[in-house]
Amino acid sequence: MAQKPSIPKGTRDFSPVEMSRRNYIFDTIRSVFRLYGFRQIETPSMEQMSTLMGKYGEEGDKLLFRIQNSGEKAKEAPEKGLRYDLTVPFARYVVQHREELQFPFRRYQIQPVWRADRPQKGRYREFYQCDADVVGTDSLTSEVELIEIVEEVYRRFGIHVSLHINNRKILAGIAQTIGEPDKIIDITTAIDKLDKIGIEKVNEELLERGLSETAVNRLQPILRLSGSNEDKLQAIAEVLKESETGMQGVAEVKEILRLYNSNKEQRDNNSFIVELDLTLARGLNYYTGAIFEVKALDVAMGSITGGGRYDNLTGIFGMPGVSGVGISFGADRIYDVLAELNLYPDTLSDTTQLLFATFGKQEMEYAMRWALVMRQAGINTEVYPDPTKMKKQMSYADANHIPFVAIVGSTEMENNTVMLKEMLTGEQQPLTITELKNKLTNPQ
Amino acid sequence: MAQKPSIPKGTRDFSPVEMSRRNYIFDTIRSVFRLYGFRQIETPSMEQMSTLMGKYGEEGDKLLFRIQNSGEKAKEAPEKGLRYDLTVPFARYVVQHREELQFPFRRYQIQPVWRADRPQKGRYREFYQCDADVVGTDSLTSEVELIEIVEEVYRRFGIHVSLHINNRKILAGIAQTIGEPDKIIDITTAIDKLDKIGIEKVNEELLERGLSETAVNRLQPILRLSGSNEDKLQAIAEVLKESETGMQGVAEVKEILRLYNSNKEQRDNNSFIVELDLTLARGLNYYTGAIFEVKALDVAMGSITGGGRYDNLTGIFGMPGVSGVGISFGADRIYDVLAELNLYPDTLSDTTQLLFATFGKQEMEYAMRWALVMRQAGINTEVYPDPTKMKKQMSYADANHIPFVAIVGSTEMENNTVMLKEMLTGEQQPLTITELKNKLTNPQ
Repeated sequence: MAQKPSIPKGTRDFSPVEMSRRNYIFDTIRSVFRLYGFRQIETPSMEQMSTLMGKYGEEGDKLLFRIQNSGEKAKEAPEKGLRYDLTVPFARYVVQHREELQFPFRRYQIQPVWRADRPQKGRYREFYQCDADVVGTDSLTSEVELIEIVEEVYRRFGIHVSLHINNRKILAGIAQTIGEPDKIIDITTAIDKLDKIGIEKVNEELLERGLSETAVNRLQPILRLSGSNEDKLQAIAEVLKESETGMQGVAEVKEILRLYNSNKEQRDNNSFIVELDLTLARGLNYYTGAIFEVKALDVAMGSITGGGRYDNLTGIFGMPGVSGVGISFGADRIYDVLAELNLYPDTLSDTTQLLFATFGKQEMEYAMRWALVMRQAGINTEVYPDPTKMKKQMSYADANHIPFVAIVGSTEMENNTVMLKEMLTGEQQPLTITELKNKLTNPQ
Repeated sequence: MAQKPSIPKGTRDFSPVEMSRRNYIFDTIRSVFRLYGFRQIETPSMEQMSTLMGKYGEEGDKLLFRIQNSGEKAKEAPEKGLRYDLTVPFARYVVQHREELQFPFRRYQIQPVWRADRPQKGRYREFYQCDADVVGTDSLTSEVELIEIVEEVYRRFGIHVSLHINNRKILAGIAQTIGEPDKIIDITTAIDKLDKIGIEKVNEELLERGLSETAVNRLQPILRLSGSNEDKLQAIAEVLKESETGMQGVAEVKEILRLYNSNKEQRDNNSFIVELDLTLARGLNYYTGAIFEVKALDVAMGSITGGGRYDNLTGIFGMPGVSGVGISFGADRIYDVLAELNLYPDTLSDTTQLLFATFGKQEMEYAMRWALVMRQAGINTEVYPDPTKMKKQMSYADANHIPFVAIVGSTEMENNTVMLKEMLTGEQQPLTITELKNKLTNPQ
């Protein structure tokens, strides 16, 4: 026999069970996006290399998959590459279609992206992102809505999470205040690791990155800030009072939290925490205002959702002055969290509800007629395609988690009934076609 | 300003309006697939080149997009390519996962495929296929179910179609009977063009392809067959009576039509025609039994759905003896047919139902609270993010086809109401929060 076929490393097949779980995740996120008025777009899997290059740093450029036409010679540089994320194609979309768009433009997009990363546990070369962005307004109500979306998505999943919020302007203010305004990237890269490596190592790294001892000393009270969001805001406002940018960041965070908290009662949800985290420093290449990151509370997993505000994303394509804010859900990590916490619903909507199992060819034709009636009533129905051994038909139902089997033999045909077997309990009862339809459209 | 960005030729962006129409198509097809117990799988966008090469003929090999890793040198031949269709990856999936699968295995798959074809009207380099296949049984009930699926999908779309059916064994029988058993591909390639070029040109082509005049003469009665399916079956059975293969094909078509027609009353659908078409000859590289093709009756468009039975698809990956039958819906052509016949539903489910338009910052906060309540009731709701000119907010609602706008000014805040404007009629009325919720959850 030929060698068993395989798929490229870092890619995956998804089985029917995996697909119904993935669809549960996508459908949940999608319906909350829609609830907030986001509209779906899709962009091509391939973009011009000129659209992609230089947008993800040197590291990112190396991780782009390039596409070669059959017509192109191998030595020619491919002109096209696979999408690396949904954000850059979205910026390209906004600029390209600006005349057709009505701003503010609220779009969501759920599509795969590709990265030629070294595959490892939980890291794939093809994976889905679920993004929602509002562009064309700098109103902080958008940030508040994105927080509400995160809360509602995880409430529906039953995952307890905390949303960490920070602001790029606060980070800039800190760099100014400690006298190292040009070292903001070094500072944030180092303090981003606080959780993982602890304060001593962070301080070492800051010195290695060329910060003065004075600057590192001045940073200490900020790294050690604790207490409620209000306590932290008060403390940081005191530290940053000389920095206009820093104070603007503080004001933005305050306003977002005020607006968000003003509707707390209506939400009545105690399993969602919004926490100001002054050490949060993601996506600094493009974020200019709020920064978000979401972590599951009951399971050790990295960030499962993240986002922030960018004031000039479309500027790279020649359209300056369009402020936007967005959020991205990581479907693969959410998949793992739901599995680890055993939170998938028992019945996912897309499974077959009823299988007809038959003792002969005549019975099979009888079953096909009944099946048509069941399908017209909206019941997902199969007829086992061969009147083979009943045991085999039953184990097919078992393996596919089909809850009901309608058995048809000569007696049932004579009586114009089927023998309905409930697979979970093993109970059997003869039913007419109307009784069967009612039983399955109104399950108790 | 920089040059306006663009996308690779033959690819497309999909706007929100296009996406909601596409989703309508995918959702309709998907729900009928589910109704018949098909289960979704997904395979990676990229496959090993060894999986793809040689499966689509020489022409097909040339149309494969190849993928280059960043790590690979340009002169190295890429090992991976983008999926060209869903059938070969499905065959690879079945062989690779055979131990986990329960046969008969019914799968559906809705994913994009890529072909480096020359782009032209209606032909793209990235497009979606919607496939359903049953593998692991040779029962003709599967063919009948696929016909029912085609009927139900187009009934839901409101498109009148005719499904043409033929059988590869009949075509083989014809080639045998006219004394040219080895020329079946030549014969079918030529007669496949009957509709387009007429019988004279078909005869010329047959002679050019090396058929004897005697053979071409013997073929004439078959090309000119007409009448009901029963008439044609009777006539062709007479012609093929010496060919065992041919008569088996006739018997299969008869049985499929008999089973399908036995439930005709229950379906009560006069806008769907099943027609035996002895000149239908698609996909002969792999089809071995039934062949299907579907055409819209009220609009000139090529085949919008096609399929057939293949007895040895997984054989190419070393797993012989697995018979299967499948069908593939062409989403892009269906999109164009629905547009041309103006058959899209007026309201597609994913649009925003309600926009809050406000006269000031206070009113906007008031609206955000109301919006939360509406969303909790399942109403897709937006709050315009800036209390800008009312005219601008109204034209946003217009442009985005939002049917209801709730206007909030100081009077409304005092009275604990909103002024609801119905955009279609222009009618306005003040409503309390409960009245608004009821109005939008139970639209007349």
